[in-house]
Amino acid sequence: MGFNFLPKDNDFYHLLSKASDHVVKAAKIFRELVENWQLDSEKVDQIHAIEEEGDDIRRDIVDKLNHTFITPIDREDIYVLSSDLDDVIDMIQSRTDRMQIYRIKTIDKNCLHLAVILEKASIALDKAINNMKDKKNIKHVMECIAEINHLEHEGDRTIRKLLTELFAENNKMDAIEVFKLKETYEALEAAIDKCEDVACTIEGIVVKHG
Amino acid sequence: MGFNFLPKDNDFYHLLSKASDHVVKAAKIFRELVENWQLDSEKVDQIHAIEEEGDDIRRDIVDKLNHTFITPIDREDIYVLSSDLDDVIDMIQSRTDRMQIYRIKTIDKNCLHLAVILEKASIALDKAINNMKDKKNIKHVMECIAEINHLEHEGDRTIRKLLTELFAENNKMDAIEVFKLKETYEALEAAIDKCEDVACTIEGIVVKHG
Amino acid sequence: MGFNFLPKDNDFYHLLSKASDHVVKAAKIFRELVENWQLDSEKVDQIHAIEEEGDDIRRDIVDKLNHTFITPIDREDIYVLSSDLDDVIDMIQSRTDRMQIYRIKTIDKNCLHLAVILEKASIALDKAINNMKDKKNIKHVMECIAEINHLEHEGDRTIRKLLTELFAENNKMDAIEVFKLKETYEALEAAIDKCEDVACTIEGIVVKHG
Repeated sequence: MGFNFLPKDNDFYHLLSKASDHVVKAAKIFRELVENWQLDSEKVDQIHAIEEEGDDIRRDIVDKLNHTFITPIDREDIYVLSSDLDDVIDMIQSRTDRMQIYRIKTIDKNCLHLAVILEKASIALDKAINNMKDKKNIKHVMECIAEINHLEHEGDRTIRKLLTELFAENNKMDAIEVFKLKETYEALEAAIDKCEDVACTIEGIVVKHG
Repeated sequence: MGFNFLPKDNDFYHLLSKASDHVVKAAKIFRELVENWQLDSEKVDQIHAIEEEGDDIRRDIVDKLNHTFITPIDREDIYVLSSDLDDVIDMIQSRTDRMQIYRIKTIDKNCLHLAVILEKASIALDKAINNMKDKKNIKHVMECIAEINHLEHEGDRTIRKLLTELFAENNKMDAIEVFKLKETYEALEAAIDKCEDVACTIEGIVVKHG
Repeated sequence: MGFNFLPKDNDFYHLLSKASDHVVKAAKIFRELVENWQLDSEKVDQIHAIEEEGDDIRRDIVDKLNHTFITPIDREDIYVLSSDLDDVIDMIQSRTDRMQIYRIKTIDKNCLHLAVILEKASIALDKAINNMKDKKNIKHVMECIAEINHLEHEGDRTIRKLLTELFAENNKMDAIEVFKLKETYEALEAAIDKCEDVACTIEGIVVKHG
């Protein structure tokens, strides 16, 4: 087993950047899928392929952590970042699968809005991670984090509106349909929240190394 | 970036005590809200305000952790304690919001009983945290922990009773109403369980430093 | 408080082996229960008894961690392993309770298939843990891990099939019954996933010490 005593900082940043790039790809295809929802869209397979690549990237990061004594940022932080980025993709993929299983027929405008928020949050995450490496860019990192926090609040308001409509007394929708939609909204909210968790970890790293 | 080499133990204990005091406040207002349930009660806003203050306290604790080399108790334990205390408040707040969204009409006596258990558990937690600092008070800390474990068991029995009634064959309630109540009970049980997690962390700290 | 400076490696391995043995016991009784489902089966009490013993084993492991400076494998890994093994038993027990509360009447063949997968995964886990100690047996450990990954995929396919049938348009089942079954399937899938988490932790340990 070989250990690197002098780690190339670039390696971890490069892998994390690859991971966040995959989150953007998954969120983009998911938003496109939701925009033009079809049960048998080939975009479902594309999301599965990205999820598998994401797993490989995460495995590469964990392997590298296990073989490196000194890391540019705390091991635990690298671990949490890669794990949370992978979780976002997993959540997108499992929600896509579930929407197929539930034979969701139409997706309303507000639900698309949640997918748009998720895509925007993933883009801001990716920018933050690509700027973490260079201390000169800390201001830009903090702007991305603020944007993600802002998007998370927008997501909160949107889901509140969606659920209030869904559970309104005059909604005559069948109970099973109500719970399919409720679960879909909550899953998208959870994916957006996970992006905020990543932003929070990045903020912690920047503060510690600031 | 300034580091404190000689931490004042009091600072962390003071912040944790502030955090647990906020848990008591949130649990107390929630119990009062449930006792006299009104969809548009001003107590909902009070819970939101406490939740925001709780976030600030948690941020203060994390900041202090990032700027202190030596901590009176393990960093990880302080981190987990502050995170779990914050989670209890978040759970109370998000349940309050959801009860509004669901337009819950009446709250039965057993559900109020869960809110009372949660309030009692939060008071025992607060006492435990306020007594952790002084080794002379360990016996009192352990009594609080035993009380929280006892309350958690009482919560288990209560929710079992509530769910058994809810899913009884002769219950003619509409499916959507059944699931709104089921989710409410489970959310309160989860908040009580989280109090037990905090008690468990406190017990671990006391054993390590005993 | 006494510390062991020279830990007997065997102690931790022995306790972890005891823990995984209890997972096998719980999964076996659960599979038998599901195979011949009866609301008032004495097997429910047997699962409760195993769950309590599992809690004791976990407490022994945490106590030993708190009193030992040097551990044969990383403290954090031992902690996560014992915690995840305990979680599998907790999940089996709480699902059993919930199936009673829901007054589940019949269990279909595919649901039994999930219980069989869970039992097989627990047996593979137990084998992996019993072979971890001796470097000569690493190949055998890796075979067990591969088997668990394979079982998890089989679980995924099974639950996908079960949910697709449950949410098929021609299913005239009552909404409450649909959600009872959905929750049962998801809980079994979560228990199988937790076994895979344990396998993943074991793999990480073997790689680090390989």
